[in-house]
Amino acid sequence: MAKRPSLSESVAKEIEELIKTEQYQPEDQLPSEFELAESLEVGRGTIREAIKLLAARNVVEIKRGKGTFVTETPGLTEDPLGLAYISDKHQLSKDLMEVRLMIEPKVAELAAQRATSEDIQRLTQLSQEIETLIKADEDHTQKDIEFHEAIAKASGNLVVPLLLPVIQSGVSLFVNLTDRSLKTETIETHRGILEGIKNHDPVLARNQMLQHLQYNKEKLHI
Amino acid sequence: MAKRPSLSESVAKEIEELIKTEQYQPEDQLPSEFELAESLEVGRGTIREAIKLLAARNVVEIKRGKGTFVTETPGLTEDPLGLAYISDKHQLSKDLMEVRLMIEPKVAELAAQRATSEDIQRLTQLSQEIETLIKADEDHTQKDIEFHEAIAKASGNLVVPLLLPVIQSGVSLFVNLTDRSLKTETIETHRGILEGIKNHDPVLARNQMLQHLQYNKEKLHI
Repeated sequence: MAKRPSLSESVAKEIEELIKTEQYQPEDQLPSEFELAESLEVGRGTIREAIKLLAARNVVEIKRGKGTFVTETPGLTEDPLGLAYISDKHQLSKDLMEVRLMIEPKVAELAAQRATSEDIQRLTQLSQEIETLIKADEDHTQKDIEFHEAIAKASGNLVVPLLLPVIQSGVSLFVNLTDRSLKTETIETHRGILEGIKNHDPVLARNQMLQHLQYNKEKLHI
Repeated sequence: MAKRPSLSESVAKEIEELIKTEQYQPEDQLPSEFELAESLEVGRGTIREAIKLLAARNVVEIKRGKGTFVTETPGLTEDPLGLAYISDKHQLSKDLMEVRLMIEPKVAELAAQRATSEDIQRLTQLSQEIETLIKADEDHTQKDIEFHEAIAKASGNLVVPLLLPVIQSGVSLFVNLTDRSLKTETIETHRGILEGIKNHDPVLARNQMLQHLQYNKEKLHI
């Protein structure tokens, strides 16, 4: 059945095109409802509907009393692959880890080849913060995610920083950790990854990341 | 700034939960607007708004005169990573190919280990159709995508079939092919991949996929 898009859907597409062709950057403010209505020659009600659709897709964010802004990661939704709709959570966790093992050792390798001195500084700081938290027996999950995100950024690949959070958050979302005590292993493999990246040693970085993920895989019993 | 979700947004989340907990399957029909309004204790207008938000995220599809249905791949939008918002298209194509090279050789390897006889039958048929199209000088892009999708499915990993189309369509979307003539190379590496999967030879499947992607990378001049 051929679907005819609604008017608000067509206008949403036009606004998306506008954002792309005019090269609006993340967190830029869009023209007002009034201006958009004028330039796209539709009513303000239609503009409002279209903006709501774009907000639902995380392209824009409506800040009450301030206006409409491009989001930090336009178009990237919370669960962009719809993983939450896969009902076999055990299989899902296993398969997400399998995908991490495909991607992350290579990403660490690229980071070792391409990391800037700022990347290295940030990774060093995060690694120290994580060690402090672990030793104080505090939750280091958030900093751990930031460490992996910083490696993704250091890889220099534009797609990897968008992709990895999807795969990583998936793992922690769907698994009940029965055992969080991998303290020594985490500290050691994080140090190893950092050393590989710092010394621009791709093989060390890759192997340490592989080891790190293998420990996690065992911890998750998958 | 803390955002208070609108009522329709909250109701959309409730309907999403309903789809997950009641284990609605792809293409299942949702309860009517009237029933949803009753059970969630809100007005039908709010239900209608919420359904529109879910349709914008490709969770449900509204078929006029028939009702509301769960989509085939709920939550998976057309460009789920927002790649279209990356303005450096040349870099993007290069980076997408880099990610394909991380994932697809390993996926071919898994397919060689796990493919069912139906998977192999489907891959054999697609491979023959592609060869016929190539020899007749006709466009084989669509069948080529189906071939790679069938390999993703044969890998047995639930995440890979959701992930790969995102990365693959990205490549073809943003690159102007200057040269489509890789006929012999395509035929030969497709045959090689198929042979590896058929004979459950993971190394052959992986290497042929690697070779196949390398040819494509050269073709795209990236």
